[in-house]
Amino acid sequence: MKTVDVNTNTPYRILIGKGLLPDTGELIREVKKPCRIALVTDDIVDGLYSSTVEDSLERAGYSVCKYVFPNGEASKNATVYIDILEFLAREQLTRSDLLVALGGGVTGDMAGFAAATYLRGIPFVQIPTTFLAAIDSSVGGKTGIDLQSGKNLAGAFWQPSLVICDHGTLSTLPEEVFADGSAEAVKYGILSSPELFGIFESGDVREKLPEIIEECVSIKRDVVLTDEFDHGTRQLLNLGHTIGHGVEKLSHFTVTHGHAVSIGTVIAAGIARHLGLCSPEVPERIRRTLLRQGLPVTSPYGPEELAQVALSDKKRRGDEITLILPESIGSCRLYPVPVSRLSELIAYGIEEGRG
Amino acid sequence: MKTVDVNTNTPYRILIGKGLLPDTGELIREVKKPCRIALVTDDIVDGLYSSTVEDSLERAGYSVCKYVFPNGEASKNATVYIDILEFLAREQLTRSDLLVALGGGVTGDMAGFAAATYLRGIPFVQIPTTFLAAIDSSVGGKTGIDLQSGKNLAGAFWQPSLVICDHGTLSTLPEEVFADGSAEAVKYGILSSPELFGIFESGDVREKLPEIIEECVSIKRDVVLTDEFDHGTRQLLNLGHTIGHGVEKLSHFTVTHGHAVSIGTVIAAGIARHLGLCSPEVPERIRRTLLRQGLPVTSPYGPEELAQVALSDKKRRGDEITLILPESIGSCRLYPVPVSRLSELIAYGIEEGRG
Repeated sequence: MKTVDVNTNTPYRILIGKGLLPDTGELIREVKKPCRIALVTDDIVDGLYSSTVEDSLERAGYSVCKYVFPNGEASKNATVYIDILEFLAREQLTRSDLLVALGGGVTGDMAGFAAATYLRGIPFVQIPTTFLAAIDSSVGGKTGIDLQSGKNLAGAFWQPSLVICDHGTLSTLPEEVFADGSAEAVKYGILSSPELFGIFESGDVREKLPEIIEECVSIKRDVVLTDEFDHGTRQLLNLGHTIGHGVEKLSHFTVTHGHAVSIGTVIAAGIARHLGLCSPEVPERIRRTLLRQGLPVTSPYGPEELAQVALSDKKRRGDEITLILPESIGSCRLYPVPVSRLSELIAYGIEEGRG
Repeated sequence: MKTVDVNTNTPYRILIGKGLLPDTGELIREVKKPCRIALVTDDIVDGLYSSTVEDSLERAGYSVCKYVFPNGEASKNATVYIDILEFLAREQLTRSDLLVALGGGVTGDMAGFAAATYLRGIPFVQIPTTFLAAIDSSVGGKTGIDLQSGKNLAGAFWQPSLVICDHGTLSTLPEEVFADGSAEAVKYGILSSPELFGIFESGDVREKLPEIIEECVSIKRDVVLTDEFDHGTRQLLNLGHTIGHGVEKLSHFTVTHGHAVSIGTVIAAGIARHLGLCSPEVPERIRRTLLRQGLPVTSPYGPEELAQVALSDKKRRGDEITLILPESIGSCRLYPVPVSRLSELIAYGIEEGRG
C-alpha cells in the first residue's frame, strides 16, 4: 500500500492499494472511532461494492445508513444534493458522525458538498472508484454540484478525513471511463512530470497504475498546497479545462469530462505554439499521446461558440480570462488574455493543434 | 459612527451609525472597487430600503441586479436558496463580483450561504435591518438555511467583507421584532457584561442602541475569535438556544427566535439554580429583565417534548448534550449532561425559573 499525506489545514492521508475495500472499516478506524456512517453512492457502484464496504464498516463497529442516487453527471444537481441533506437530517447524523462517498467524481463532488454543508460541515471519507476520481477529486477539497446555467457552479472547499483508493476497482471500468482518467493524468505529466507523461506516451499504463495515481495526487497536492483557495497557481490545474468545459457544455455532457479535457489540452497546446511559447513538437507529442489513450483530440465545435461558453465559466474574473499554456512537457504557465481575444486564439489553437 | 474590527482569517469591519444607508456605495468602495452587485432582500425590506441602497451603489459606480424573496422564516429554505444560486448564475456573477444581503437574519443567513457556495464562495456585504441581525448574524460567519427536519441544518462558515449597520432602520421595527433582538442582547449581558445587562434591567434601551450593538458584537467577536469553527467555547453563545430552538420548533415557528431564546434562557437559569451553580436571584433577575422587554418567560411545552426536540438539534454530539448555564450575571459555563438526563433537568429548570 502506498500512502500520500496531504497537509492542508486539516491534514489527511490518501491510501493507494489493490483490494483495500474489504478493509474499509479498519482503515477508517485509524482516523475515526465507531459512529454512524452515511454511505452515499450511485446505483451502479452500489451493486458492485456497497455490500463489501458496508460489511467491513459494520465489522469494525460502525452503524451504516445508505443513500443511493442514479449514476451519471445528470444526478449532480441541486435536487439530489438537497435530498442528500434531508436524508442526513432524517437520519439525525450529528457532527460526530461521518459521511462516506463511494464512487466516481459525481459522488465525491456532490456527497462532499453535502458533507461540507450539513450542520455547516461534518467529516467525510472519499472512496474513489474511477481513475478520474482517484487522481483528481480526492485532492484539492473542491466539492460541488452543477446548476442549470453550468457545471460546478455551486460548491464549497472541504477536505476529506481520509481517501481510500482501491485501484482494483478501476479494472471494472469501461475503456471510455478509464480514458477520462488518462486525460487528467496526461495533464499532470504536461504540468510537471515528463516521466509521468512518458508512461502514457510509450509505456504500460495499466501496469503502472499505483505509481501513476501516487504521482498525480502528489503533483496536485503540491500545487494545491501553495494555493488552497484557488486564487493563483492552482489555476494551472485547469490546463485543458477552460475550453474543455465548453466542449462538455456544448455537447450537453454527451462528451465526458476527460474526453473534453483531452480536446481542450490539445487546443491549449496549439495556442501556446501559436504564441511562440513552446516548440512545434509539444502540441504534436500531446496530440499523439492522447490519441494513444483512445481520446479525441479535435473539437466538434468552432472557436466562436467555445469562446462564448468559456466566458460564462466561473474561472473568468472581470474582463480577462486566464489560459493555462504549456511551455514544454513538464512546465506550464498562466497566461491572462482579454476576453475579446479569446475566440481568435481558440481558432489559432485549433489550427495549430490539428497535427 | 462606531466601528468594530473583526479579525477572523479574513478580517472585516462592522460600521454602526444612524443614517448610513444612503452612503452604502461609498462605504463599500472602501473594501471593493466597482463591480457587479447582486442585492438580495425580502419583499418588505425591499419596499423600505432597496431604492436608497441601489441609488447609492449606482452612484458609487456599481452595477446592481436584485433578487427579492417573500419575507419570513418560511422562506429560509432549500428552494429559495437554490433559486438564489440559479439567479446568480443566470446573471453571470463572477468571483470578482459581490453579493449584498439587505435585511434581517433570514436574509443574512440565506444570502450568506448563497455567497459561501456560489462558485465555491464570492464576497458578500451584510446590511442588517433588524436588531437581532445587527447584533447576532453579523458576527460569527454562520450562514445557512432550514431543512424539513429542522432549523439551520444546512449552511457554511463564511465571513462578510463588511457589515453596515444603520440603526436608524431599527426604528421601523414592530415591538415584537425589536424584542427578538433584546432577548439576544440580554443573553450577551448574562454571558459577559453586567453593565449591558443593566441597561435592559433598568435603563433606556432605545437611547443606548449604538452602545448596545457595539458591546454585543464585540462580545460575540471575542468569543468567536477563540473558536472560529464552533468546536468549544463558542457554544457559550448558545445560552438559551438549546431549549429555545425546541420551543420554536414545537410552535412550528409561530414563536419567533428571540422569544423562544427568552424562554430557553430562563429555563437554563433555572437548571443552573437547581444544580447549585448560581444563587437564587440569578434566574429571578433574568426573568424580570426579559419580562421588561415584553418577552415571554414560560414555556408552553413540557419537559419531555422540549428534550426530545433538543436532542434532534445539531449541537448534540453522540450521547451527551452540552447545556450553557449561568453562574452569575456576566459569567456562564459549558455543562455537558447525558442525553438521558435532559428531560428531568428541563423539568427542574421550568420549576426553578417560574419565579
